[in-house]
Amino acid sequence: MNTIPPNPAILADRFKTLHYDPDERAVVLLNRALYPHQIEYVPCHTVEEVARAIETMVVQGGPPLAYAAGLGLALAAPTAEAYRQAAQRLLRTRPTADDLHHIIPAALERALAALSAQQEPQQAILRYVNGEIERGNQVSRACGQYAADLLQDGDHVLTHCIAGAALCWMLWIAKHQDKTIYLIPTETRPYLQGARLTAQCAKELGIDVTLITDGMPAHLMSQGMVDKFICAADRITLDGHISNKVGTFQIALAAHYHRIPFYVLGYDGPDPHTESADGIEIEWRDGREVLYCGGQRTAVSGIKALYPAFDITPPHLISGIVTDRGVFAAHTIRQYFNRV
Amino acid sequence: MNTIPPNPAILADRFKTLHYDPDERAVVLLNRALYPHQIEYVPCHTVEEVARAIETMVVQGGPPLAYAAGLGLALAAPTAEAYRQAAQRLLRTRPTADDLHHIIPAALERALAALSAQQEPQQAILRYVNGEIERGNQVSRACGQYAADLLQDGDHVLTHCIAGAALCWMLWIAKHQDKTIYLIPTETRPYLQGARLTAQCAKELGIDVTLITDGMPAHLMSQGMVDKFICAADRITLDGHISNKVGTFQIALAAHYHRIPFYVLGYDGPDPHTESADGIEIEWRDGREVLYCGGQRTAVSGIKALYPAFDITPPHLISGIVTDRGVFAAHTIRQYFNRV
Repeated sequence: MNTIPPNPAILADRFKTLHYDPDERAVVLLNRALYPHQIEYVPCHTVEEVARAIETMVVQGGPPLAYAAGLGLALAAPTAEAYRQAAQRLLRTRPTADDLHHIIPAALERALAALSAQQEPQQAILRYVNGEIERGNQVSRACGQYAADLLQDGDHVLTHCIAGAALCWMLWIAKHQDKTIYLIPTETRPYLQGARLTAQCAKELGIDVTLITDGMPAHLMSQGMVDKFICAADRITLDGHISNKVGTFQIALAAHYHRIPFYVLGYDGPDPHTESADGIEIEWRDGREVLYCGGQRTAVSGIKALYPAFDITPPHLISGIVTDRGVFAAHTIRQYFNRV
Repeated sequence: MNTIPPNPAILADRFKTLHYDPDERAVVLLNRALYPHQIEYVPCHTVEEVARAIETMVVQGGPPLAYAAGLGLALAAPTAEAYRQAAQRLLRTRPTADDLHHIIPAALERALAALSAQQEPQQAILRYVNGEIERGNQVSRACGQYAADLLQDGDHVLTHCIAGAALCWMLWIAKHQDKTIYLIPTETRPYLQGARLTAQCAKELGIDVTLITDGMPAHLMSQGMVDKFICAADRITLDGHISNKVGTFQIALAAHYHRIPFYVLGYDGPDPHTESADGIEIEWRDGREVLYCGGQRTAVSGIKALYPAFDITPPHLISGIVTDRGVFAAHTIRQYFNRV
């Protein structure tokens, strides 16, 4: 790995997309709802502003939104009561991904410990969260390395939504292994993360990108145009289910039907607190978001819509879960904790 | 069927969406690329204008575009050579649906016969095509009747793209059978036929509509929120494959996985000239159409895109093909021609 140059994709390094600015006393977030059509950094000066930024997808993706929330905790008034209330508010933002539900309690614990020890609670939070961001960057790179090793020269890789920093590292490392990879992102309605974020990452990495709509994966598979399906997961259960952006499940079904490998970029493994799929709360977002595209009304007036943000794919449809500790069969992902 | 009032959905009656205007000497088409956001009737004064209207989706759907092409043939100069060239131009517009490839040769034959008999070729074309439109309306109603009989009170019916006049009749007749039906259209990117045309039809019929994106069908099925999947087909082969708007295949896979019935509105049955799937040419449209939504750029610059307009679903995934002559198992759809 020493021969791999720095990864040029902005989304490969979370510090480039979110940080705490001590001069502004603000959490500064790259607005992923607009990126890359507009490059806008949003300063959040209060816990509530950070919470709303998470809810409105200014920051999205399991780890990034958890980091934003963690930094956001540092904006609370330095009292135990204020930190507890801020933690509750931040935990309420989004239910499905597990990272948020690890980082906020851990950051709160450090703040309360610092208060008890009459030390700086804000510094304790920032030290912890920045350490987690750094650790997450390393996890992403290691996960991307294992994923790159699964790719073959000439592979056409279908992906859905944005699989984040590990995808950036997978593509970058594969490129430096002299493998030519063709990336096929689904556009991923309603937020178009594939058409915007994934496509932009691949562009920055010099990877060939061919966009499709969310209805096309099965047809391309039937035509022999897809070699692997690779996406991330917002949560992995101990028995090998994954939740990810809605749409993943039906692509996984199509991949299984066509005997095309489906690998999950699993970063730092399963959620130790979630035994199986019934422990995952699927977020229902405002259905009105489906009636619009890029701020423009696309549907007729006077109708309803539904927006389940995630779906769940069972382990028998998954060929392997790629983590920073190697590749696991979905059914045995629990062993992640035994491997170092 | 005598007790059913006239169908109020505009798309239920093809004469309301396209006709030949003798005063204007034009084929007048409801612009389905804009409907219902804008109500625009496009007059086409030449064969070339009709051909381009078909290519740019001003008129879409297997039968409607075939009718538009048939009427368009009447705009050619009244010579055998002009009719033959016009027929070739119109046949080149779109390859996948079979109706076009039935109506144009038959209309040409009638024009040439009229010329030989020193009769009015234009009148011969219009008489034939208007007769086909009238027949198509009756087929749609009969097909819709058989489909309505398959529905149960309270059914949540998922549909994809726009299944046309038969869908309008199915919903209207079911309503007059005192069945409450909940329609769940996929929006159907890139043209959003579901968000526009299907949703509008259901609104006009007073049917409850809940829109979803193209990535959501499998998840809704997994949650017990879909009772039946029903769509149309642009072509049905003699061995029971169907081609329909891209996205149909992966919804059919998801329906099969969840043991949810998938019915195809098959209108007047299979194409007698297409034995199996390898006889269907899948149209590849300009990939750039995937980079936009409603005229607005949605994808980043500098990337490619693919737009296969249709996909193919094999018979083992289909629960039944509903025609104007009743419901057939997909594998036995060939028997359509034996039933009257």
